[in-house]
Amino acid sequence: MWSWIRSPLKGKGLPGLDGIRKRKWSDLFGDNDDSEGKGHQTKVQMTCGVHGTTADLSRLVPYMTLLGIVAASFISIVDIFTHVIFEARKRVSVDITHGAVGYVIYVSSGVLLCLLSTLVCQQWSKEAEGSGLPQMKSIMSGFHDKLRNSLAVEALAAKAVGLICAIGGGLPVGWEGPNVHMSCIIAEYLSRIPYFHSLRQDKALRLQMMACACTVGLASSFGTPIGAVLYALESTSSFYLVPTFWKSILATISGAMVFDIWYKTPVAEAFENTTFGPDDYRRSQLILFCLLGTFMGIVGAFFVKCTHEVYQFRKRRLTYLSNRFVLVGVVALVSGLAQYNNELLRIDPRKAINELFSSNAMQLMTYSDVMFLLLIKFPLIAVCVGLPIPGGVFISSFLMGAGCGRLYGEFLRTVFGPSIVPGLYAVVGAASLAGGVTRALSCSVLIFEVTGQISHMMPILVAVLLSVTVANSFNQSLYDTLIVMKVRKQDNKRFPEP
Amino acid sequence: MWSWIRSPLKGKGLPGLDGIRKRKWSDLFGDNDDSEGKGHQTKVQMTCGVHGTTADLSRLVPYMTLLGIVAASFISIVDIFTHVIFEARKRVSVDITHGAVGYVIYVSSGVLLCLLSTLVCQQWSKEAEGSGLPQMKSIMSGFHDKLRNSLAVEALAAKAVGLICAIGGGLPVGWEGPNVHMSCIIAEYLSRIPYFHSLRQDKALRLQMMACACTVGLASSFGTPIGAVLYALESTSSFYLVPTFWKSILATISGAMVFDIWYKTPVAEAFENTTFGPDDYRRSQLILFCLLGTFMGIVGAFFVKCTHEVYQFRKRRLTYLSNRFVLVGVVALVSGLAQYNNELLRIDPRKAINELFSSNAMQLMTYSDVMFLLLIKFPLIAVCVGLPIPGGVFISSFLMGAGCGRLYGEFLRTVFGPSIVPGLYAVVGAASLAGGVTRALSCSVLIFEVTGQISHMMPILVAVLLSVTVANSFNQSLYDTLIVMKVRKQDNKRFPEP
Repeated sequence: MWSWIRSPLKGKGLPGLDGIRKRKWSDLFGDNDDSEGKGHQTKVQMTCGVHGTTADLSRLVPYMTLLGIVAASFISIVDIFTHVIFEARKRVSVDITHGAVGYVIYVSSGVLLCLLSTLVCQQWSKEAEGSGLPQMKSIMSGFHDKLRNSLAVEALAAKAVGLICAIGGGLPVGWEGPNVHMSCIIAEYLSRIPYFHSLRQDKALRLQMMACACTVGLASSFGTPIGAVLYALESTSSFYLVPTFWKSILATISGAMVFDIWYKTPVAEAFENTTFGPDDYRRSQLILFCLLGTFMGIVGAFFVKCTHEVYQFRKRRLTYLSNRFVLVGVVALVSGLAQYNNELLRIDPRKAINELFSSNAMQLMTYSDVMFLLLIKFPLIAVCVGLPIPGGVFISSFLMGAGCGRLYGEFLRTVFGPSIVPGLYAVVGAASLAGGVTRALSCSVLIFEVTGQISHMMPILVAVLLSVTVANSFNQSLYDTLIVMKVRKQDNKRFPEP
Repeated sequence: MWSWIRSPLKGKGLPGLDGIRKRKWSDLFGDNDDSEGKGHQTKVQMTCGVHGTTADLSRLVPYMTLLGIVAASFISIVDIFTHVIFEARKRVSVDITHGAVGYVIYVSSGVLLCLLSTLVCQQWSKEAEGSGLPQMKSIMSGFHDKLRNSLAVEALAAKAVGLICAIGGGLPVGWEGPNVHMSCIIAEYLSRIPYFHSLRQDKALRLQMMACACTVGLASSFGTPIGAVLYALESTSSFYLVPTFWKSILATISGAMVFDIWYKTPVAEAFENTTFGPDDYRRSQLILFCLLGTFMGIVGAFFVKCTHEVYQFRKRRLTYLSNRFVLVGVVALVSGLAQYNNELLRIDPRKAINELFSSNAMQLMTYSDVMFLLLIKFPLIAVCVGLPIPGGVFISSFLMGAGCGRLYGEFLRTVFGPSIVPGLYAVVGAASLAGGVTRALSCSVLIFEVTGQISHMMPILVAVLLSVTVANSFNQSLYDTLIVMKVRKQDNKRFPEP
């Protein structure tokens, strides 16, 4: 029975093994007459990183599975530690103590944690500072050897501890960039296991391994396998190796299983699925969503510009902040002082996003709260991007976009009546601000997976496309801007680091 | 204000314009010292098909938008004609006349329509026969000039009329392959408009245009923009040009708007969104879904093998069927005779799939009906794949997979009790059988978009991955098998066509 199905059209296991298909193509078009002979075999061996061979599979499949499981577990553990510190700090300063004592405890613990984060990065690895996505982007573009320091185990330790302290300390930084970085380091070290040594030899495979690691890191940040695969595709500079696709899917599925198990436990905060009905979006509203997308594109470009300007201003004028500890301490102090009095500013961003996305009226917040949140968070986030601590910006832009979208939706609801569902505008706002900041169209897919709903894809896709286009017509993506900032620093040495 | 945001980090509109990013990369790593000079500009001009330039944009954006709108409109019109003929035939033979008269009318009209479909293909263009996806796959792999006949306007006309007649005539063929083919022909003819002539000159752009057309065709078949983009990515042989991504998204969004408008009218049948609750899938059931995925992989491989064997058998033994009209007439006769007595076999596959996917008990069908449907349809579909009429196999494999999954789910429900939701098993079965037949992991994304739900992604992703892996270990995908069949025919001329 089995052999009957197999003969005479033999297959070879996983997709991407298109050696046979190749041969048939050349048979069909006759452009490779020695396809059955030695010439073809050499060609297949040469490109085995691209097409994969059966011998590779026995190493590749375990490697990708292991990568998914190990990276997702590591990321989940970091997230749980972060959450525990975050909650413990809140409990001690709000529930146990009150008033001035609580205030002092909250602010001082925040400052201490942020200073610890800075110390760890300074001592262990300066490569751990910042988002990590720009470096990983350049590694995926083939600059593997020139950024070897970024993939050291010291960077992993510094990134993990620094991230836990920074988020636990109350700074509004995201974890998706650091997660991607940590995942890439884990991929690098896993490939040093002797059994996987042969995979390291192949340069094409090594690029694919990094792309898969990037995917796993992003997928484990929000539980979004498909969006992460697409994001990695968009981050690649010009050519995407198609066999990376199944490898990424395999790795992210392994990772997503781990994610699934962790995030159904009560220790971690998770995104809730939205429940928009079929009538919550009407075609006539598309123009309103287009306006929102365009506006978010402008805000995204403005945010990138602000980040750049804040960084420049800090370097040129505020020379007394040139010591990294003073700098982080001051920002943490301001952040703690600003956030203590308002409960909303202290909650996990995922909780706030769930609230903003909800299709019903908001329970925790009022409109003025949302506006206050935006006004406080926007400058804080822009300042935090350039700090010498680990931290991304994805989740922050989600939060700001959701806030803007919700406000816009609530405003429209008072104008046009109850046919407007503000939660849907919050979803579109989140996706399109993230698109405006990162310039990735895959933000739309990320949001489908985050909300668990894809039935209202039209407004989200259109708004993200508009937002990315509008923002790109102003300036470059945040990650490219960060690279430019880094280049200036390295080239000119005009602004020496402490 | 605007110029402040823009300076000094200028952007250039749409994503994929990474000329600036390129330059910054080379600044960073110093591997291209003349990047500001002439050498770099030449490089950018050489690769303008890959990166796009501002001059191109004023043509590319209108082209992609137009492609999406025209192709989706054409496909929708074809679909509506199909639907009208399909329904008219049913009304005349069942509602107006009854018994023997109705039977004769149903069968004879079916045979006549199928013969018309064959005639059209024979007279206008033999390239219109079959799915069309294999040819488009080879065009996307760069064999553009060798398959010029496939992109003639005669093939478009034959494909459209032939498809309407074949589906209207009651043959269980799908429309996604023909849609992709029609969309590619439309892309070819749109690029002949003088304004878009410069786009045609660039070989890299031409490949991208075809990839976008393929995406639009698939997206317009089921209303699945993201899945279609991924499917086109997987169909590309080794390297995917990343700038194709935004072009595809732009084209499919334009197409999806048209699709959205048509399919909310009552003239066409559409997929309904599923409404599975958060408790409909529990992690402990994953092993059951894995079993289903594995089984569907075997069924998919078996189906491919059957298709191949039926074709071989027909060519070798049934020489009296070597005339194409006799062949199609006999199949249409058998199909009509078998389908008239059972209402289920006569309904639109989308309606049947909606029924099978529903989270409640089935309204139209009983379990024995589903089993009967599978037993009748499976051999019919396998026979129809090789017929000289236009017709794909995607929707048929969706239907069969949904049927198998539903039966499996209903069986499990009687064993394990009401915690099992058979509709979810139908969804997983549909995705994984489609994966087993086409060997595309993107079938999982297609099903997310078809059902409008992505909250239960884990079982679908795992089952599709398993199914594709298992099926690939037996034989090649259906499309590759079709190519092999075609190659044999062309090479050996052992089985001359009438």
